[in-house]
Amino acid sequence: MSVKFAVLGHGVVGSGVVELFYKNRKSIEKRAGTEMDIKYILDLRDFPDSPYKDKFTKDFNDILNDDEVTAVAECMGGVEPAFTFVKACLEKGKSVSTSNKELVAEKGDILLAAAKANNCNFFFEASVGGAIPIIRPLHRCLAANDIDKVAGILNGTTNFILTKMYNDNMSFADALALAQKLGYAEKNPTADVEGHDACRKICIISSLVFGKHIYPSSVFTKGISEIDLADVAAADILGHAIKLVASVRRLDDGRILPAVMPMLVPHENIMAGVNDVFNAVLVYGDGIDQAMFYGRGAGKLPTASAVMGDVIEAVKHKVTVFSQTWTSSDDNSFVAPVNELCTKWYFRVPADCESVAEGAYTDENGISFITEENLSFDEAAAKAEKLNALAFLPVLD
Amino acid sequence: MSVKFAVLGHGVVGSGVVELFYKNRKSIEKRAGTEMDIKYILDLRDFPDSPYKDKFTKDFNDILNDDEVTAVAECMGGVEPAFTFVKACLEKGKSVSTSNKELVAEKGDILLAAAKANNCNFFFEASVGGAIPIIRPLHRCLAANDIDKVAGILNGTTNFILTKMYNDNMSFADALALAQKLGYAEKNPTADVEGHDACRKICIISSLVFGKHIYPSSVFTKGISEIDLADVAAADILGHAIKLVASVRRLDDGRILPAVMPMLVPHENIMAGVNDVFNAVLVYGDGIDQAMFYGRGAGKLPTASAVMGDVIEAVKHKVTVFSQTWTSSDDNSFVAPVNELCTKWYFRVPADCESVAEGAYTDENGISFITEENLSFDEAAAKAEKLNALAFLPVLD
Repeated sequence: MSVKFAVLGHGVVGSGVVELFYKNRKSIEKRAGTEMDIKYILDLRDFPDSPYKDKFTKDFNDILNDDEVTAVAECMGGVEPAFTFVKACLEKGKSVSTSNKELVAEKGDILLAAAKANNCNFFFEASVGGAIPIIRPLHRCLAANDIDKVAGILNGTTNFILTKMYNDNMSFADALALAQKLGYAEKNPTADVEGHDACRKICIISSLVFGKHIYPSSVFTKGISEIDLADVAAADILGHAIKLVASVRRLDDGRILPAVMPMLVPHENIMAGVNDVFNAVLVYGDGIDQAMFYGRGAGKLPTASAVMGDVIEAVKHKVTVFSQTWTSSDDNSFVAPVNELCTKWYFRVPADCESVAEGAYTDENGISFITEENLSFDEAAAKAEKLNALAFLPVLD
Repeated sequence: MSVKFAVLGHGVVGSGVVELFYKNRKSIEKRAGTEMDIKYILDLRDFPDSPYKDKFTKDFNDILNDDEVTAVAECMGGVEPAFTFVKACLEKGKSVSTSNKELVAEKGDILLAAAKANNCNFFFEASVGGAIPIIRPLHRCLAANDIDKVAGILNGTTNFILTKMYNDNMSFADALALAQKLGYAEKNPTADVEGHDACRKICIISSLVFGKHIYPSSVFTKGISEIDLADVAAADILGHAIKLVASVRRLDDGRILPAVMPMLVPHENIMAGVNDVFNAVLVYGDGIDQAMFYGRGAGKLPTASAVMGDVIEAVKHKVTVFSQTWTSSDDNSFVAPVNELCTKWYFRVPADCESVAEGAYTDENGISFITEENLSFDEAAAKAEKLNALAFLPVLD
């Protein structure tokens, strides 16, 4: 018997799913253990030149009401109408695989519950780290671990910009313009540059690891638009690369502290070498010590590859994979405020400043140094004010 | 109902499995979806002070004949008696998870067939890359990809030695002695240093990716004992790190080319930054482009973490996971000889040599350069003879 699935959306990712499926159909069917085909592609636009033009529909109900369709790949993006469509599919017992991080970060708990209630699966490997297998390894291969920290470079656009600043001495504005020219950044780059995209992804990871839904609105988020070339250069001389780090850690009292912000990553940390549009996720557990997953965090075929991998899983597992789930949370008291993050800090202060740490580096942009002691956010801000700091950034421990 | 499992061997890894299970029992049971306990630990030695001393047995038949035991963690190492024990367990329908790379590399096809025939699972995540989830991601998350190349740093001992040579200018002999002192290298370091350990691991990866059993005896294997400090330093100046690379690639005609040998890895390649005892596996696929998995490749808890993750999988999946398998191969004609590997080469030649490439670097140890053209093994050897080369090594592309 042949399994039929539908693809919602024929944009970059959705068209990639179609392309990848037909390219590798034979090996995909072998891995799924069954014949497979795409029955519908949902898009409001016309694609008269597509070789699959007879599969297109503009009416979601064609898919919803066709019992032959048992799996759906959602690649539309945005919360609505994706949420309504996905929920309806799950309620009909159709498993859904999505690349839509906004949907998972805002509505993951509801959709996971719907999947469970209807004995099907809601998978979202592609929503974090694009091609990088991270959701499933986190939940399966590392199942025996007590995970207490995850830190990642989860946005390719900002990592490309920071890499250009570091390698080619480009200003933030020039690097952003180049990213836009190359198609790595959108015309309105706010979601990437200000950290909102990375925030959604760390919310998904945090929810998965700690079992409760973490909403983007409860995560401290700061982007890279204020990063100065002088700090990129000084950080390098002090042995660090500046990266936009999305992280979550469990505090001693059990609360968790998620945050997105530019941080100094020591050169010895493998994450410092993650450049260009590549993403990486570093996971710390009591058994494994640390493990890193690295790859392309976005792009047509990389993301499609993750969606398609989930579709194969959905076809293979006809019952809900219970473990990959988390619960709703009305109360956010288990999320600690960012001020409780205690770490070393980088400061750049005016050249006439006298109160600096060992190993400070001086050039025409001022004196740069890293504190020997850990400081909270508030303490760092107070110190910055006292020293008239030109810049200050936390250091990843 | 509580699931009972047994641990074969109470050495480093086996005792780690016991320790990790009882430490994280609550979360492990949550992830497995059932209560669990260890019923037997098999070891010929006595452990009178162990808190689990009542679980020890010296008789494998206690485990084999106890129908309550449905899963087994094999952590004995070596082909025998592990092979006999594991096969007997699988034939009784008990799923087995192993950390034993020698067993999987030599007998994987037979054990996978036994698992399939008896509707249980033979899992071996821990046999490659220790704590790094690589076997399952390769087979599941990347299922939609056509994988054409895998390259890895699969041996922590040799990577530690090469890191010490690179960072601290230590000779091979001194770095090996330090590794032995720290417990990273065995008294007889041959299996690690000469590449045999990495060879077993690339055999397992190759078998999994390409679907046919690849035996260690058909893989070209060269270790790092001849690597000179002069080459480590010159390679660095030429923009590369020397690593022991275990790789497999598919040639245009469909044959595959596995090999283990020291290679120059460009600094831009994320693998060049994998240092100390850490391992990494870089996977190239048509969908993902490239993805890397990084972590501790050995050690008590990291390896135990992978074994325990497999036990959880075995408990959750009561039927054979068919896809994670490969077939026996009597005929090795699909394995291409190493001479067909065409790549750029690094040469170090005497200072009076005139025939060198652009960008050559000269010091008291000779002239070092990287060829502009790709050369086969035979062509590189002929060039080395002609130039009286002091050293020559392939470059990872």
